[in-house]
Amino acid sequence: MNFLSDTTAPAHPALIEAIGAANAGFAASYGADEISSRVEARLKTIFETDLKLLFAVSGTASNALALSALCPAHGAILCHDEAHIHRDERGAPEFFTGGAKLIPLAGAHAKISLEALDRALGEIPEGFVHSSPARVLSLSNLTESGTAYTPAEVAERADRIHQRPAFVHMDGARFSNALVTLGCTPAELTWKAGVDALCFGATKNGALSAEAIILFPSVMDRFEELQARQKRAGHMAPKMRFLAAQFEAWLKDDLWLDLAGTANAHARALAGGLDALDGVEVMHPVQGNEVFIRLPEALGDRLVAAGARFYQWPDGSCRFVTSWCTQASEISALLDAARA
Amino acid sequence: MNFLSDTTAPAHPALIEAIGAANAGFAASYGADEISSRVEARLKTIFETDLKLLFAVSGTASNALALSALCPAHGAILCHDEAHIHRDERGAPEFFTGGAKLIPLAGAHAKISLEALDRALGEIPEGFVHSSPARVLSLSNLTESGTAYTPAEVAERADRIHQRPAFVHMDGARFSNALVTLGCTPAELTWKAGVDALCFGATKNGALSAEAIILFPSVMDRFEELQARQKRAGHMAPKMRFLAAQFEAWLKDDLWLDLAGTANAHARALAGGLDALDGVEVMHPVQGNEVFIRLPEALGDRLVAAGARFYQWPDGSCRFVTSWCTQASEISALLDAARA
Amino acid sequence: MNFLSDTTAPAHPALIEAIGAANAGFAASYGADEISSRVEARLKTIFETDLKLLFAVSGTASNALALSALCPAHGAILCHDEAHIHRDERGAPEFFTGGAKLIPLAGAHAKISLEALDRALGEIPEGFVHSSPARVLSLSNLTESGTAYTPAEVAERADRIHQRPAFVHMDGARFSNALVTLGCTPAELTWKAGVDALCFGATKNGALSAEAIILFPSVMDRFEELQARQKRAGHMAPKMRFLAAQFEAWLKDDLWLDLAGTANAHARALAGGLDALDGVEVMHPVQGNEVFIRLPEALGDRLVAAGARFYQWPDGSCRFVTSWCTQASEISALLDAARA
Amino acid sequence: MNFLSDTTAPAHPALIEAIGAANAGFAASYGADEISSRVEARLKTIFETDLKLLFAVSGTASNALALSALCPAHGAILCHDEAHIHRDERGAPEFFTGGAKLIPLAGAHAKISLEALDRALGEIPEGFVHSSPARVLSLSNLTESGTAYTPAEVAERADRIHQRPAFVHMDGARFSNALVTLGCTPAELTWKAGVDALCFGATKNGALSAEAIILFPSVMDRFEELQARQKRAGHMAPKMRFLAAQFEAWLKDDLWLDLAGTANAHARALAGGLDALDGVEVMHPVQGNEVFIRLPEALGDRLVAAGARFYQWPDGSCRFVTSWCTQASEISALLDAARA
Repeated sequence: MNFLSDTTAPAHPALIEAIGAANAGFAASYGADEISSRVEARLKTIFETDLKLLFAVSGTASNALALSALCPAHGAILCHDEAHIHRDERGAPEFFTGGAKLIPLAGAHAKISLEALDRALGEIPEGFVHSSPARVLSLSNLTESGTAYTPAEVAERADRIHQRPAFVHMDGARFSNALVTLGCTPAELTWKAGVDALCFGATKNGALSAEAIILFPSVMDRFEELQARQKRAGHMAPKMRFLAAQFEAWLKDDLWLDLAGTANAHARALAGGLDALDGVEVMHPVQGNEVFIRLPEALGDRLVAAGARFYQWPDGSCRFVTSWCTQASEISALLDAARA
Repeated sequence: MNFLSDTTAPAHPALIEAIGAANAGFAASYGADEISSRVEARLKTIFETDLKLLFAVSGTASNALALSALCPAHGAILCHDEAHIHRDERGAPEFFTGGAKLIPLAGAHAKISLEALDRALGEIPEGFVHSSPARVLSLSNLTESGTAYTPAEVAERADRIHQRPAFVHMDGARFSNALVTLGCTPAELTWKAGVDALCFGATKNGALSAEAIILFPSVMDRFEELQARQKRAGHMAPKMRFLAAQFEAWLKDDLWLDLAGTANAHARALAGGLDALDGVEVMHPVQGNEVFIRLPEALGDRLVAAGARFYQWPDGSCRFVTSWCTQASEISALLDAARA
Repeated sequence: MNFLSDTTAPAHPALIEAIGAANAGFAASYGADEISSRVEARLKTIFETDLKLLFAVSGTASNALALSALCPAHGAILCHDEAHIHRDERGAPEFFTGGAKLIPLAGAHAKISLEALDRALGEIPEGFVHSSPARVLSLSNLTESGTAYTPAEVAERADRIHQRPAFVHMDGARFSNALVTLGCTPAELTWKAGVDALCFGATKNGALSAEAIILFPSVMDRFEELQARQKRAGHMAPKMRFLAAQFEAWLKDDLWLDLAGTANAHARALAGGLDALDGVEVMHPVQGNEVFIRLPEALGDRLVAAGARFYQWPDGSCRFVTSWCTQASEISALLDAARA
Repeated sequence: MNFLSDTTAPAHPALIEAIGAANAGFAASYGADEISSRVEARLKTIFETDLKLLFAVSGTASNALALSALCPAHGAILCHDEAHIHRDERGAPEFFTGGAKLIPLAGAHAKISLEALDRALGEIPEGFVHSSPARVLSLSNLTESGTAYTPAEVAERADRIHQRPAFVHMDGARFSNALVTLGCTPAELTWKAGVDALCFGATKNGALSAEAIILFPSVMDRFEELQARQKRAGHMAPKMRFLAAQFEAWLKDDLWLDLAGTANAHARALAGGLDALDGVEVMHPVQGNEVFIRLPEALGDRLVAAGARFYQWPDGSCRFVTSWCTQASEISALLDAARA
């Protein structure tokens, strides 16, 4: 009953096998290998568009690299106040961009509200040399509260920022989970809705360590600079084939969607089961693999005593994260303990 | 007959197996796992000292992180003009340090000469606000020419820089190869000779992607800052156990030394065999797994025609790199083709 | 009737004369001149303490340099959401610190509320590697709304941040104006209340271009690094005597306090006169030389028609700034036009 | 007999007067004032071209800002090993560019030799992601040895770098002195010879503190970014009129050329007089206001005893710098002491 984080989960066996299989003979280094090429081709099919691809080993690296290719040092990045890039990356975006400014915005359920976005844009004039102009809008999907922006919600935010010479970045550490819940296509949730660059995470959903930065056509001209930044940041792994191999196995036969679907289903079951109990309040719509829930103290204690592991969240709720390897029996055991 | 680079070689099977074995159940993320602890303990034994350990996924990251913990933004790093950190890392040290200055020094066989070091130190006064003071001396061992600094050579350079409030960094991307050739202990080649921080590379010698930054006691107080920088640079991999597992397998039963010994022996055989031919000149002592050699044009063409792959080096020579998986038959075939 | 900004005002003639007087013969460059020494001595008397002094040519430079000496690249600076360092310096603090994070806090009248401060500190744990720890609390005095923190208000905020290994920075671009209103001593408003470093501005109060960074004893050990940063940022003016001469004249015979008192008095008169009119609302207590006031549209138009110049503020109010050279007749004329 | 540096000299009285004259009433801040506009117009006439202008308060700031507008963080700047930007600016170019790499090149008399330039360009391939591509060639004119590049010498270096997507920066801290010696037009020594951006210094030649960054048409599209960087670096002085006023007076009636001519003449007289003595060796052609000369020890002692002040240079020579305010009597006195 480990619901601490999807980063403590193991990797899916298919990815471990793929690494072994990739370890045959010599292969061009630094991303020029054949597996990397095949993954890029596969992603073009999945996203129904031309695109450029780079791998990274952590979500922090993926986000910071992508942001640094989109935002100049003297620009600003708008994000939700709860965003991982603002709260949990130790200033990585500031570091990679050379000191761009992050402007935290409000909004329920960790989604940037249109009001907050409009107000911020109103307060940041274009062409005023004294303030950092808005150059990137960063949306997390799933959000930090486990909710999902719909394609329409992405689009109405993207439309606003695109009135400026600015771009939309999507932090997709749990993109798979959002996609499965929304039931739309990868294209609909990204470039068709105005996303210029996607950080597409596999690590939380079955990989050992594999993140992809995807530049859609609107920003593909920044690929060469992005590569330079990747090298310069020490993120151009010499034996890139082992990152590529993970992605290849993960994308094969829609494994990525199946794993996300499993995690999501467990989260819904967990939330539904607890929500039926007295005094329990689910804080945010459960639209992925994260459940934020307020529990009566006695109930929380009972779960801990039964061996459940989860985080106390700063807002007083508890966070439960399911993953591809969560077992139905764990959910049952948790709910049994809760009802005891 | 692929002698292009040790980064194009596959990983040793024992490390692949170790990754699979590490993939059991949940494990604490970000380096707090048990395998990481075991590797740290093992390194303390190997290096006969207390130390602090962080993992990285590339040599560039390892070097740049270590340097950034040792050199302030307004300081200077002395290195050989051929050093990887100066020539081949796209300005990563400048990026990670926040703009420290690299001062390239001369010296035969890619070793910093004492004369060059003394002259540079003479030209950089301490306490002069207008120039960047020397804060780090970076030594590559193996050097970029495949030669090795002996413990005594390290010590006489370290002694000079330690007259200042400055540190010695060793780029040990091929540390194993140097160590095996020199026949000294890891301690003798590092902290006993004045090295404060070692970037200890496994990737070129059998790992998928695994580098260790080792802080010896003289700089262990910088560990917390180094961790912050690792996180901030996106190099704190969520599932660190997979990096640790590679190191554990690599260090077990002296596998790392065996692999380096194999690569070195092949390099010596290759160099010795070619050197016996007319018009051939070995450019640098072969003290590791790299051979820089000047070949008559016809000979070079013959090797290429026979299927040998190697790089033309900017100085007009050819670089051959052997690795743990080079086969004796490849060396024979190469030499046969050369003598044909 | 120019109430646009105190940066559009001319310099006081005494400072112009001082520059001419300083232009006699050779003088040591880069701050080693005699006038600089005299100013440092004078400031020690004024602030009743030992201190270290550096000059800068703009408030942005002064703030950013001071902050960079107090906050590491991987730390955070807490400031008011309206703070000049956050809104009006084009990311200078991020640039000079190497990418530290600014955390904007709320509070009425541009003063950081204790609630906002406590909540932020609660959300930023010490020793959590994933988030940027609070390392500086920056207070503007005068604030961006023209209000003044009292010594007690400074102290209760400083006490909180000093529970951490963190410092208090005061942006004193209009420090003189705050001081005159509060009627306390310079020491009481700074180091005695917990301020570690003060950016003491003269430019807005009669200088051509002269700002002083003052390190109080608690952070004097950072002086050497600050000097290195000053040089590195191009802010170590070769002929520093001309900056020092401005300060010397400005501090002489309390000229700085007289000038601030004049500006403040005009601001109070302006605010008081307008406030008596129908439909007018003074937005913030007038505790310096800035008045933020909401005017009926017809009244605003009348003032403009009469030749008054002032800024429309984003919150819908109008900002009037008085300066040392504002004339009583201008205030009268403005009020006459308002009452017409 | 103060020959230490032209930065210890006073400002020319005409510039002091101009500052006083500029101090009349209100003026738009941050460079939008009328004097700034007039100076820009005047420079267009002097340089016979359209151009963009920004002011700075130090040569370090001027160089670093200009370089940062021309070179990306992941690029390299080629300069002479003795260049001020490499040796004497505490890493300012690295700081402002976000960590670009400086590549020091050799050449007699502090001029980059064509051989060194060609070799460096040969070693830095375009489009190789692992190394920092050459993006700027920086030429100092006067050089650090007091010599001048002719327009033809500038052009043959510029032509080489312009084969790449790269620019030519000229550090013109003593541009006036070079120009007067060469007898060419400002246009011939700059944009007509391939210079893209000029840092045009007045401080060493009669100003209090005034440097101009001039972007010629080939790089004028970078002006907006340069302004953002100027603001962000704290170099957008609020009361810019006082910088502009210095330039206006300095450029009026060719005062700048007269002052440089005076300094140059004194340097030639000094060098010629000393060179006639036994055992004296003038190290570099005297093409500006600096003389590097090797003196017999007894002679050096005699000059010091007579009250002459000058610097011992690292190469064993002595550096004498003349300025606009050097007196013929000082030269006579020096030579009399030398011959005694």
